[in-house]
Order: sequence, then C-alpha cells, then structure tokens
Amino acid sequence: MRKESTMTPPVGQDREQAARRGRPGYDQESLLMVCVGVFNEHGFDATSMGMLADALGITKSAIYHHVKSKDELLSLSLDRALSRLDRVMEQARQAEGTTRERFELLVRGTIRAVIEEKPHVTLLLRLRGNSPVELEAMNRRRAMTRELEARFEHAQREGGVRTDLSPRHLTRFSFGLINSLVEWYRPERDDPDQVADAAVAMLCDGILLPNGNDE
Amino acid sequence: MRKESTMTPPVGQDREQAARRGRPGYDQESLLMVCVGVFNEHGFDATSMGMLADALGITKSAIYHHVKSKDELLSLSLDRALSRLDRVMEQARQAEGTTRERFELLVRGTIRAVIEEKPHVTLLLRLRGNSPVELEAMNRRRAMTRELEARFEHAQREGGVRTDLSPRHLTRFSFGLINSLVEWYRPERDDPDQVADAAVAMLCDGILLPNGNDE
Repeated sequence: MRKESTMTPPVGQDREQAARRGRPGYDQESLLMVCVGVFNEHGFDATSMGMLADALGITKSAIYHHVKSKDELLSLSLDRALSRLDRVMEQARQAEGTTRERFELLVRGTIRAVIEEKPHVTLLLRLRGNSPVELEAMNRRRAMTRELEARFEHAQREGGVRTDLSPRHLTRFSFGLINSLVEWYRPERDDPDQVADAAVAMLCDGILLPNGNDE
Repeated sequence: MRKESTMTPPVGQDREQAARRGRPGYDQESLLMVCVGVFNEHGFDATSMGMLADALGITKSAIYHHVKSKDELLSLSLDRALSRLDRVMEQARQAEGTTRERFELLVRGTIRAVIEEKPHVTLLLRLRGNSPVELEAMNRRRAMTRELEARFEHAQREGGVRTDLSPRHLTRFSFGLINSLVEWYRPERDDPDQVADAAVAMLCDGILLPNGNDE
C-alpha cells in the first residue's frame, strides 16, 4: 500500500491522487505524528479535535476517516512507545554477561528507544491517568519499573550493584536520568551515541574523578 | 495576620469568622495550593476558572477576590519554585571545600527544594512556554542550567570531574535524575535523607560495585 510520508498535506500530483482516492492526504502514520506533536505542545486534555484539524489542515470529519476518537490517537501513540520499550526489556532479559554489560545494554536500548520514539515516549511520560487508556498505559509502564527493581535487587544479591541504596531509588533515579532526554534532547546538538555513553558512564561510575586535585 | 491553614473551606466558628470578614475562607497561600494541585492534575491550559472554583468550593468571583487571573496564580507558583531554587544556587556559589563537598551541597539543596516545594516545582517542570509568564519562568530556569554547566566545566579544568563527558550532558542528566523526584517521590514511602543520599551516591560514584563478583 502506498504511504504518504510527509507531515503536511500533499501537493500537486500527490494531492490529485489523494483527491481521487477520496482521502484527505494523510495515512494513519503521518496523521498520528502531527496529532502527537499537538498533544505534546498543548497537553492531551487541552487539545480539541478542532485544534488537531487546524494543525493537519483538514476537516474534523476527515480525521474521523482515520480514527474513531482523540482517545484512539492517544492509544496508538502510547502503544508505539510501550511496545518499543517492552522489546528493550525483553532483550535485556535474554542477555548474558556481567552486571555491567547487561545494565549497559538496557540503558543503551532505552536511550535509543526514547530518542527514536521521542514524541510517543514524551506523551507516555506526561500522562496523568485521567482516562482508562491512560491508566492502562501507566500500568504497563509500572510493570517495567517493577521489573527493573527486581533486577537491581538480584544484582545486589550477586554483588554487582552497591547495596547501600534501595532498589526503588536505584530504579527511579536511573529511569529519571534516562527519561529526562524527552525534555532536552536535540538531534542537532546531541549525538545519540555520545548521549548513551554519558548516561552509561554516569550511572555506572558517577561523575567525580576519584583522584581529583582536591581529594 | 490570621492564616487559614486548611485546604477546604472552614467550618463552624471559622466559617462565621470568614463570613464576618466577607472573605471566602481562603488566604492566598491555601488558595494557591488547591489551584496548583488542579493545574498539576489536569494541566494548566486545560484548567478553567470554573474547575478551580469547583475544587475550592467557592464561586469564580470569590477567586477574583484573591487574584486577578489564572496567570497570576501560575506566576505566584512558579516564583515560589524559582526563588527557592535560586537560593540553593546562591548557597552553592558561596560554598567552599572539595568538588565533592560543593556538588553534594548543590544536590542535597536541590532535592530538599524539590521535595518541600513539590507542587510548585512540578508545575515549573511541566511548562510548555505557551504564555509570557511561562516563557519568563523558563528563562530563569535556563539560567540555572547554564550556571551548573559552567560550574561543571570549571570542575573539569580543576580535575575534580571526569572530562570524557560534555558539561551539557553532565548538567542535563544530573538535573534529570534529581527532577524525576516530582514524578515518583511519596512522603509515605521515601525518606528525604535517604533519597538525597541515593542521589549523591549515584551521581558522584555510580551504582556498580567495582569489585562485583562478575568482573
């Protein structure tokens, strides 16, 4: 099936083809990207179908050609983020090697997921639980948090991770550091590999030099 | 001046006193706390004066007795968060000692500020820049980020902080880790001192044991 990859309504020949098909010029993917951008700018609750129609440059009824509701858009976006993060957890589960190697795999995979699916992950992280769709997504996210907590606990017992911090704080602060990417990552300023290196280095070994001149 | 400390309209004698004064039972402080709670639950843009009136249990015109607009409430809240964080930066600026001691002071001070002013800091961190009030607050926040960046750069030159990571990434990830508190800190689950210890330990030295059983 032919895909429109543009974020704006097609022009020229594309527009004619779209008109001939009787479709408004977006496929579900490109429509979703525009809508998620609007959600992240104004907040999901504050976004009306009228605002989405304005941003898309099409009518409200043309949106309903693609999706049943604003909630369906939310659900599509959240599932995109969560499925990607689920795959990272699954890979980490299968991985072998030292605690450092397995933790590094998890951190790098999560960072790549956050960067590559940034609009969807941003929406996920800003949920407030105001609807069943949001609550379900928050439950899936909570399951990941619990899994990382269990993995930290296990690594502490095995002697790979310091035991003076609780698994809860290790988990929450690690995800906090990584997830902050949605707030500040800029593709034009930040190299994805350097960002991942920095996160791995900070989380594994910290930022202070043990032999600094002031020790 | 007598202060109402309750989050709900006063009852009994209090209510009579409030009625006698012709005031709706809130002072600016208690009114602000309720309103900021609603902003954080539904998003600032999605919150109407009607929703605030419902949450407060008073009429919209009674709100205008205290503040001119929703924007004034936002401004009061953001200023509360920013003034507190400014004081932490100022203390860190004055501090002497090793890189570790000064960094620890900054981390502990910021964490205490985030915990004690959590509703206001939460609102600050969720700004999207949709109004002049929001843009001004974001500028003040950006100045703090730039200052920490400059301090990291200085500490790298002095040999206290590892030089393989950029000051930008050191700064953003450090604030990211700390600021995540607004998402997960629960007074009934997390001891403030333990939380601060964990953040200092993770940021300074990382989470892995150098002599784990799998090295």
